[in-house]
Amino acid sequence: MPTLDILALGNAIVDILSQTDEGFLRDQRLAKGTMALIDEARAEALYGLTGPATVVSGGSAANTAVGAAMLGARTGFVGKVRDDELGRLFAHDLKAVGVAFDTPAAAEGPATARSFVLVTPDGERTMNTYLGACTGLCPSDVAEDAAASASIVYVEGYLWDAPAAKEAIRRAVAAAHGAGNKVALTLSDPFCVDRYRDEFRTLLRDGSLDILFANAHELISLYQAASLEEALAGLREERALGVVTRSAEGALVVSREGTEAVPAFPVERVVDTTGAGDLFAAGFLAGLARGFDGRSCARLGGLAAAEVITHIGARPQQDLMALARREGLAG
Amino acid sequence: MPTLDILALGNAIVDILSQTDEGFLRDQRLAKGTMALIDEARAEALYGLTGPATVVSGGSAANTAVGAAMLGARTGFVGKVRDDELGRLFAHDLKAVGVAFDTPAAAEGPATARSFVLVTPDGERTMNTYLGACTGLCPSDVAEDAAASASIVYVEGYLWDAPAAKEAIRRAVAAAHGAGNKVALTLSDPFCVDRYRDEFRTLLRDGSLDILFANAHELISLYQAASLEEALAGLREERALGVVTRSAEGALVVSREGTEAVPAFPVERVVDTTGAGDLFAAGFLAGLARGFDGRSCARLGGLAAAEVITHIGARPQQDLMALARREGLAG
Repeated sequence: MPTLDILALGNAIVDILSQTDEGFLRDQRLAKGTMALIDEARAEALYGLTGPATVVSGGSAANTAVGAAMLGARTGFVGKVRDDELGRLFAHDLKAVGVAFDTPAAAEGPATARSFVLVTPDGERTMNTYLGACTGLCPSDVAEDAAASASIVYVEGYLWDAPAAKEAIRRAVAAAHGAGNKVALTLSDPFCVDRYRDEFRTLLRDGSLDILFANAHELISLYQAASLEEALAGLREERALGVVTRSAEGALVVSREGTEAVPAFPVERVVDTTGAGDLFAAGFLAGLARGFDGRSCARLGGLAAAEVITHIGARPQQDLMALARREGLAG
Repeated sequence: MPTLDILALGNAIVDILSQTDEGFLRDQRLAKGTMALIDEARAEALYGLTGPATVVSGGSAANTAVGAAMLGARTGFVGKVRDDELGRLFAHDLKAVGVAFDTPAAAEGPATARSFVLVTPDGERTMNTYLGACTGLCPSDVAEDAAASASIVYVEGYLWDAPAAKEAIRRAVAAAHGAGNKVALTLSDPFCVDRYRDEFRTLLRDGSLDILFANAHELISLYQAASLEEALAGLREERALGVVTRSAEGALVVSREGTEAVPAFPVERVVDTTGAGDLFAAGFLAGLARGFDGRSCARLGGLAAAEVITHIGARPQQDLMALARREGLAG
C-alpha cells in the first residue's frame, strides 16, 4: 500500500516578489504572465532594478505539495537546493506543513534557485528564474521506492529545463507505473511547452501520463491550435484525464467520456496570481487522494487557488482545511 | 542646509514572519506583543518549530525610513548587516525606495540579524530577535557629518541592546544638535524600556531628545505609572514633543501647551500589526519634513500605519504617496 498520496517532483525555488508596472515589463522586454530563464548576471542586474521584495518559498510543484499537505494529503517533494540560507528557508517551509522532503542539499555549486516575480497592478505575475542548484538534480535524488510508494507522482513541466532531471523523471514514471500508481504532469508555462512540445506529446501518447494539468494558453501551445476549442478536441483524444484551468472562468475536466465545466470561486480582489495554477493542482490532487469525483476535485482546486491569489506569494496563508470544511469539501 | 530630512539609526533586521496560535506562545513562554532577544541556538530551535514563513526586510527604524521615503522625505538609514544573502536583501529593499544606506556590511562575524515574528489570528505579533551582525555597529559607522546634515535624527530604543551602538548614538545626537537639527527617539517596546529606563529618562531630561514616540504600554513603563493618564502627566512635564500611539484609538500629540487627540484610520481587517508603530512614526516624520502641524503629522502617521497592518510584513505594499494624496495629506 502506498505510504504517500502524492510525490511531487519539481524545481526547488525561492520566490522574490516585488511590485512593478507595465512600463517596466516593456522596458525590460519581459513577456507578461510567463516565466523566463535567466543566468546569474541577469539575475543580479534585474534584482538591482526591482522594488522592495517579499521572499516566500515557491517552485510550482513545491507549491502544489504544500497545498495538498495542508488539505490533508500525505505528500512528499523531490527537488534540489544548495545548503545556503534560501535553501534552508525552502526546506523549512515544506517541513513546516508536513511535506516529506529528503533530497540532499548540494554542498557546492550554484546557489539555491530564485525567481524574481514581478507583480503588476492587475495581479498578474511575470517570472524570471535563475535555476542555480536545481540544475544539479540527478536520477539518484529520486528514490525509486519513493516514486513507487506514492499513489500519484506529480511532475512539473519546468523540470525539463534542468537536463539531468529528465532521467530522474523517466525513472520515477517507470517506478510509479510498475507499482500500479498514477503519473500527473503540469505543462507549467506556454513557453515551456514550446521548448518541450514533442516530449510532452510523446509522454501523453505513450501512456506515461495519467493526468495532465494545463491552462488554456499552455494547451493551445501543446496542440499548436488556433483556439481553445481546437486544443480541447486534441485533448479529448488522449487517454489521460485532462484538467484545464481558465482563471476566473473556472476549470474543465476533460476525458474521452466528456467535458465537465466547474466554476471558479469568486475573489474580491486579485492581489497576486502567483501560484494560482499550482494551488489548483494541489486541491485537485488532494481531492483525488480523498476519492472525490472530478467535479469535487476541481471545486477543491478552485478553492485553494482562490485563497492564494488574494495575497502576495504562492503559499497559502489561510488554513485551507478550514476553508474546505466551510465549503463541504473536506471529505 | 541639511541634505536629508531624516536619518534613521537602528538595528538592521530581516523579519521571518509566520502564523501561530495562542497555545504556541504559551508553550514557548513568549510574551505576546513584545520583542525578546534570543541567541543563535534558540533562533535555530524556534525556527524549527514555526510554520511556513514570509521573509520581509524589517527593523523598526528601517521600516520607518522606508515609509518616510515612500512619503517623499529625503531619508537615510544607518545599521549593520553581514555581507550575506539576508544582508543583501535588507540593503536592496532600502535602496529600492530611495533610502540612502551606506553603512558597510560586516565581512566576518555573526550573520545578518533576523527576527522570528509570530503572528496570532488576532493580527498581533510577538517577536524573537537574534541580533547577529547588529552587535557590530560601531561609532565610526555613524558619520558625524551625516548626522549633522539631517533635519531629524531618529533613533530606535532597541539600539540600546547593541552595546557598541550607544557611543554611536551619543555622537549622532551631539552632531545633530551642534548643527541645530532635531533628535527623535522611539521607545520601541515596554521590555526595552524596562532595560534602559534610566538612560531614556536621562535623555529626555538633559535635552538630548526633541521628539519622543511611544505607545501606551511603553509610556506607562517609562514612568512606572499606574495608568496612561499618570504617564501622560509625566510626559507633559518634558521639554520634548510627545507622540503617543494607542492602536485603534488613534494618537495623542503631547506638549507643554496641551494634548491633541487624533483618530486612527479605520481598517477592515487587521492581518498583522508588525510595523504599525514604525509606520506611524514614518508618516509623522514625513509630515514634519513637509512642515505639517502636529495634527496632520499624526493623520499621515495613522494612514501609513493603517496600510501596513492590512498585510503580512512591516513594509508598505501600497503606494503610500497615492494614499496620502487621496486623503489630502500629500502636502
